[in-house]
Amino acid sequence: MNDLRINGPRLLERLAELAAIGAIEGTDGCARLALTDEDKAGRDLVVTWMRELAMDVTIDGIGNVVATWSGPSTDRSLDPVMTGSHIDTVRTGGRYDGNLGVLAGLELIETLTEAGISPERPIAVAFFTDEEGARFPPDMLGSLVYVGGLRLEDALDIEGIDGAIVGAELDRIGYQGLAPLPGPVPHAFVELHVEQGPVLEAEGITIGAVESVQGISWTELTIVGQSNHAGTTPMNHRRDAGYAAACVTTFVRDLATELGGCQVATVGKIDLHPNLVNVVAAQATVTVDLRNTDETILKEAERRLEIFCDQLGGAQGVTITPRVLARFEPVVFNSTVVDLVADTAAALGHSVNRMPSGAGHDAQMMARVCPTGMVFTPSRDGISHNPAEHTDPADIEAGANVLLHTVMTLAGGTP
Amino acid sequence: MNDLRINGPRLLERLAELAAIGAIEGTDGCARLALTDEDKAGRDLVVTWMRELAMDVTIDGIGNVVATWSGPSTDRSLDPVMTGSHIDTVRTGGRYDGNLGVLAGLELIETLTEAGISPERPIAVAFFTDEEGARFPPDMLGSLVYVGGLRLEDALDIEGIDGAIVGAELDRIGYQGLAPLPGPVPHAFVELHVEQGPVLEAEGITIGAVESVQGISWTELTIVGQSNHAGTTPMNHRRDAGYAAACVTTFVRDLATELGGCQVATVGKIDLHPNLVNVVAAQATVTVDLRNTDETILKEAERRLEIFCDQLGGAQGVTITPRVLARFEPVVFNSTVVDLVADTAAALGHSVNRMPSGAGHDAQMMARVCPTGMVFTPSRDGISHNPAEHTDPADIEAGANVLLHTVMTLAGGTP
Repeated sequence: MNDLRINGPRLLERLAELAAIGAIEGTDGCARLALTDEDKAGRDLVVTWMRELAMDVTIDGIGNVVATWSGPSTDRSLDPVMTGSHIDTVRTGGRYDGNLGVLAGLELIETLTEAGISPERPIAVAFFTDEEGARFPPDMLGSLVYVGGLRLEDALDIEGIDGAIVGAELDRIGYQGLAPLPGPVPHAFVELHVEQGPVLEAEGITIGAVESVQGISWTELTIVGQSNHAGTTPMNHRRDAGYAAACVTTFVRDLATELGGCQVATVGKIDLHPNLVNVVAAQATVTVDLRNTDETILKEAERRLEIFCDQLGGAQGVTITPRVLARFEPVVFNSTVVDLVADTAAALGHSVNRMPSGAGHDAQMMARVCPTGMVFTPSRDGISHNPAEHTDPADIEAGANVLLHTVMTLAGGTP
Repeated sequence: MNDLRINGPRLLERLAELAAIGAIEGTDGCARLALTDEDKAGRDLVVTWMRELAMDVTIDGIGNVVATWSGPSTDRSLDPVMTGSHIDTVRTGGRYDGNLGVLAGLELIETLTEAGISPERPIAVAFFTDEEGARFPPDMLGSLVYVGGLRLEDALDIEGIDGAIVGAELDRIGYQGLAPLPGPVPHAFVELHVEQGPVLEAEGITIGAVESVQGISWTELTIVGQSNHAGTTPMNHRRDAGYAAACVTTFVRDLATELGGCQVATVGKIDLHPNLVNVVAAQATVTVDLRNTDETILKEAERRLEIFCDQLGGAQGVTITPRVLARFEPVVFNSTVVDLVADTAAALGHSVNRMPSGAGHDAQMMARVCPTGMVFTPSRDGISHNPAEHTDPADIEAGANVLLHTVMTLAGGTP
């Protein structure tokens, strides 16, 4: 491994500048839900940086931005090696989730430019729309459309949690572009991301070479009971949608415990109607997030949830209607790319572990069309989707250098 | 009992006209949360009717409206007999809850006027502010302030579920009046109200002579955990405020079942933050509504909830902070007034049962300062706080006639 290295302080500076947009006061975090005004401001800033790096910027119909860079002797007829991630956040987002992968990509380009290095293949840096799915389900929406997993027309019609429509919001913020979809297939895709879990830190490891991604099952349950007076309605006369929502929530916890292993299960969203202290709730909507690296067990979890809801509906006199918000099978990354990430990390002198990802990532969509891998860096206390999300500067630098040399190897440059 | 009777169709007409304000489309119900624009429009209409009936309208500092009527030979120096209720509703309100008691009072005045009858004492018809407590806690706010149970200054500072302040909203809708508080003590108070429960209908009884009101305990619990990624955080690392909220909700149901009798317990309001599908909730607020006619058992329910929350907080790594939103001991009505209601109903040929009230009512506040009773009419299927709330026209007419003759007896008129 030669001694070319990215500029750590410059990367941290860009991370801070982007995090200032939608900053959550009194914290390091930020809130840039997909296709909001804050997301637009973040996009504008990153696109400005891409243009300053003389990259060729394209925007497609779902708002994915792909910026391609070539050195003086790069063969532009070859498929580029792509890196990138997303810059949308959850409402209580940290500054690294997604943003690190995109800005490390730009840092890599600036490092190569400064060093006057030309790889054989072009290098593309992308940010994909609505990776979080926190405003518009499903998550990883932009990369899903990029690889042809969802038709653009259908994606544009999706309604968000606030009633907004994807197509109208893209148009409103000026990010509905003309680049073709499905998007051009790159030679390979590598994504740098913070782990968002406690494993690397707990084991004292700097770099994760991600082998696979957990399968994800998101279901929204609409529970309809009957609103009634909280003082006058005997307990056995109630058809309480709020109580049923609570039963689903505690069941889901028990389900994860019973299935064990890496099974996780979360009810993160509960909305009651009319949501008043003295009224038995007429309606509840809850979301259930189930994840496992093993598709068979994930299916078993879904099956048990379905049975439980049937029984609960009958026992409580409520109707429970499920709606699938997102469903992705577990993904296994390309072993050549995974090996390359692990070998590169080791060659750079970093400790490295092969590991699965607990979170969904754009890389799992790209894995459908090209050899793909991921680089993980540690998350302090495993905290993510939280303004307190933190990764040490040294780890960020290490991750970006692993990305630099992995991408350069794939792009046929030996810097 | 003489043969004077109220005009049933005219009363139903007024109920329909008032229900048209804030009407919930496609239903018979309406939404006029306290001190909203809809409440103002409802108030304006009822005040117009009061003035058309030549009543003397006063408005006090918390927005209670009291309209007093005298016949030609009434002694205006005597304390009036008061009737009335409230015209605010929950968000999914029916057209009878509260409104019936106020508009039956006006119907009574119109009946006496048409018949040229003068009672010895004046008759007052009141509607009290924010009886439901659905926007501003506690419920029965207006009547509580009327009887001196809460200082006006403290009431005006109360913040609603939407962040609005009582004083500012009263001012905005023009219902902060100058009549003194605590308000003048009437000779007696009688309130007509729909039962809001299933008992009268189930027993085939037309009139309830209400002997007592359940004690009410409202607590808001603020649960603080830690937001985290739903995919990467192992179950045993979670401090999930949403899960804790669900545990409180199911515990409260078990508590009511265990304590039995007339104990009811409801979690009607759950708010998670950030309330997203893929984020473990950092914070939850839930409300717990506990009611019993027996103060000792109600206190036991509160004690068990407190112990449960302590244990839950420790086990789940969350903090749970309680805040009392409302607390009223059970109320026993004046036996002379209760007897009078029962005797009047029987004399009018109606079936009648003595019974407790499961809901809170303005009458329980008035009972602190003067002899007080209530008249209940049946609620179809026991449904209330729901647009489907319904009472048969014949029962409404029966209830209003019982009110007429009860009030007239108390006012020293023998129509």
